[in-house]
Amino acid sequence: MRGGVRAVLQDLLRGHAPRSYSSSAAEAPAVRPPRDRILTLQSMNPQVRAVEYAVRGPIVVKAGEIERELQQGIKKPFSEVIKANIGDAHAMGQQPITFLRQVVALCTYPDLLDSPRFPEDAKVRARRILESCGGQSLGSYSASQGVTCIREDVARYIERRDGGVPADPDNIFLTTGASDGIASILKILVSGEGNSRTGVMIPIPQYPLYSAAISELNAVQVNYYLDEDHCWALDVNELKRALNQAKQYSNPKVLCIINPGNPTGQVQSRRCIEEVIHFAWKEGLFLLADEVYQDNVYSQDCQFHSFKKVLYEMGPEYSSNVELASFHSTSKGYMGECGYRGGYMEVLNLHPDIKAQLVKMLSVRLCPPVSGQAAMDVVVNPPQPNEDSYPQFIQEKEAVLSTLAHKAKLTEELFNQVPGIKCNPLQGAMYAFPRVFIPPCAVEKAEVSVK
Amino acid sequence: MRGGVRAVLQDLLRGHAPRSYSSSAAEAPAVRPPRDRILTLQSMNPQVRAVEYAVRGPIVVKAGEIERELQQGIKKPFSEVIKANIGDAHAMGQQPITFLRQVVALCTYPDLLDSPRFPEDAKVRARRILESCGGQSLGSYSASQGVTCIREDVARYIERRDGGVPADPDNIFLTTGASDGIASILKILVSGEGNSRTGVMIPIPQYPLYSAAISELNAVQVNYYLDEDHCWALDVNELKRALNQAKQYSNPKVLCIINPGNPTGQVQSRRCIEEVIHFAWKEGLFLLADEVYQDNVYSQDCQFHSFKKVLYEMGPEYSSNVELASFHSTSKGYMGECGYRGGYMEVLNLHPDIKAQLVKMLSVRLCPPVSGQAAMDVVVNPPQPNEDSYPQFIQEKEAVLSTLAHKAKLTEELFNQVPGIKCNPLQGAMYAFPRVFIPPCAVEKAEVSVK
Repeated sequence: MRGGVRAVLQDLLRGHAPRSYSSSAAEAPAVRPPRDRILTLQSMNPQVRAVEYAVRGPIVVKAGEIERELQQGIKKPFSEVIKANIGDAHAMGQQPITFLRQVVALCTYPDLLDSPRFPEDAKVRARRILESCGGQSLGSYSASQGVTCIREDVARYIERRDGGVPADPDNIFLTTGASDGIASILKILVSGEGNSRTGVMIPIPQYPLYSAAISELNAVQVNYYLDEDHCWALDVNELKRALNQAKQYSNPKVLCIINPGNPTGQVQSRRCIEEVIHFAWKEGLFLLADEVYQDNVYSQDCQFHSFKKVLYEMGPEYSSNVELASFHSTSKGYMGECGYRGGYMEVLNLHPDIKAQLVKMLSVRLCPPVSGQAAMDVVVNPPQPNEDSYPQFIQEKEAVLSTLAHKAKLTEELFNQVPGIKCNPLQGAMYAFPRVFIPPCAVEKAEVSVK
Repeated sequence: MRGGVRAVLQDLLRGHAPRSYSSSAAEAPAVRPPRDRILTLQSMNPQVRAVEYAVRGPIVVKAGEIERELQQGIKKPFSEVIKANIGDAHAMGQQPITFLRQVVALCTYPDLLDSPRFPEDAKVRARRILESCGGQSLGSYSASQGVTCIREDVARYIERRDGGVPADPDNIFLTTGASDGIASILKILVSGEGNSRTGVMIPIPQYPLYSAAISELNAVQVNYYLDEDHCWALDVNELKRALNQAKQYSNPKVLCIINPGNPTGQVQSRRCIEEVIHFAWKEGLFLLADEVYQDNVYSQDCQFHSFKKVLYEMGPEYSSNVELASFHSTSKGYMGECGYRGGYMEVLNLHPDIKAQLVKMLSVRLCPPVSGQAAMDVVVNPPQPNEDSYPQFIQEKEAVLSTLAHKAKLTEELFNQVPGIKCNPLQGAMYAFPRVFIPPCAVEKAEVSVK
């Protein structure tokens, strides 16, 4: 029973590709029957074919169809489609943070630097970013690793966040959203054939970027299950089970953590993080910490702890040895700037040879979008209490975060009011992953129809 | 002799990774000797290790070192480093096109839509783009394929450029620069193992994105050589030679063309394009046309012809059958907006199943940067003669293009004045690829030192 429901939910989460498209104008009738295509489902890259991606999969395609039907006046028992498949804050009406947009607009069109319409603290930041850009233009390529002064600001932000644990700008890589950073580090990590293929441990339920990247790279997806009965907690015994099993058919060497959880909304306890780090250290696993929801903690009983901070607090045996990449982004938090594709990755204890390989690999794509880098800079270097823009910034930031906290509570409560649905407390992030209990009579009916 | 020089030039062009980095603050001394790293040159993805990338390789690293030494006051027989390794227009002092930046600034900070500082035609474009964005914000994710109205503008631009040949917005994919489009389509194209691995035909000299992507994807690089004695022309007999040879150890199914040429600066004749298309059609090759320098044609005797236009002019047998992906970008032309990472890909005769697979694959990275999409929109939808911004736009555009043409002529002439250097006419793009003749006495000395 429960397994069946879980399977359905996981199927939805993993998703399938939309199946067909209307043929294009270019596909006009030929003088002879058209030849077979060179690029077909049979001839294409089988690893790409194997990718499943639900966030924009068939449910989203169906939602789009229903939306178009409503627009065409077709009657439905509802009047609008609300898209809850993705954390797309501005699309849901959240307003941009004024200060962030002011700085990016000033960088975009520096003529505005003499406009009285813009506050001085925004101008100071814009000038500083532009001075770090070739020709003082957002239109120049940045270094592959990102604009130098922005990487410095990221390092200082991490130091403040982690109570003084040192951060080195040379370990910061600006990325095209967090997805790009995660896919890049996974790409450099995977190797091997057959039973020696790299195993990548990921939580289930997961964010499907992980399964998609693993499939594309022909690595082995190693599932560890979060504990729904304990608010989606991560249990190290489950990590052990998953690891031991995976060793029989792969070479597990990466452990991915999403904290706060996507799509499960839990916030990991400090103790649990310590256990995970110890496990990774003991088993020789490379840690990936997806921490893009670090500003999205709603429950009074929870606090965000970065993996890096805990790593340092555990002492030099860990902080000098455990290889860690952690990720942040402009897309979530209180700013919700998904479209800018800004983000960063901090690497720790990466072998210098590998750092050079990473720079080389990232160089092929030249650089992350520079306007996204500028947006990231504001996130890590927001107005300070002594600056003019501070009051408005803090008011906007707190308004967004309290609205998100309110919505999280509302979602949890509403789900739990529905008979047959149970939803864990939403401690953080932007998602709920409720359990649906199928009534026995529905199961009976389904069993009859299967026969 | 000549072979030796060519080998050196190609080595430079292919490049090698920078070798080492200073160790970071995080790599502090451990209580015990540090453990072996999990991720090393030996354990990493061997296909990524095999990538060679010169554009940002060891010569660039050395240039950076020399630059820092000059800043520190170390005496050299020169006073500055001019970076000519990459087409990075704004970094070299080229000014952004005002209208483009106005539209993007308005989209970034819509408060400015009431500012008298901005012309009405820029506001009209900004409003139109914002209306096509979720929540009217550049901060929302766009559709994976790109903002709808921008794809429509791209389609209309292609129709105008190609004298009315139809273009379907559904065949347009907005990308993160052209590099992202090229890497994406190559990723979906490759398959096979051993002797049935996909062969990808690329020009030599090449732009190293191609060799890097081919290496990462474990495909087979099939070199065809451009004819230096005929101004780097593409000779179909050379394509035949390369294809026949490659069939012995791979499954060649992709033919990449760069026109205007990077790094060779030639512009392909219409007749040559026809021959290439016929060859691709006859041999069943998927065509990739890298046309990012379509606005950069300087020679009076040359004209840019798009592969798509020629394909249509050859009749329905070709236009209904030949599979083509062509690429454009915000980074080159007269706008030089590299940092925005804007671009598009137009696909033709792609199997509907494959289009769905492409959308799925691109969905994993969510969307291209929306500010780059907005910049792309201005490139394909510039001010028209009846609009207020037209005079300034045309003046700026022509100033940039005539400066580039002047620099191309200057570069060619200066190279040819140097004894022992011969440079072909620079018909287009942004690069020169001169031949260096090593004097016999240098060869003799080198031979002695080898012994």
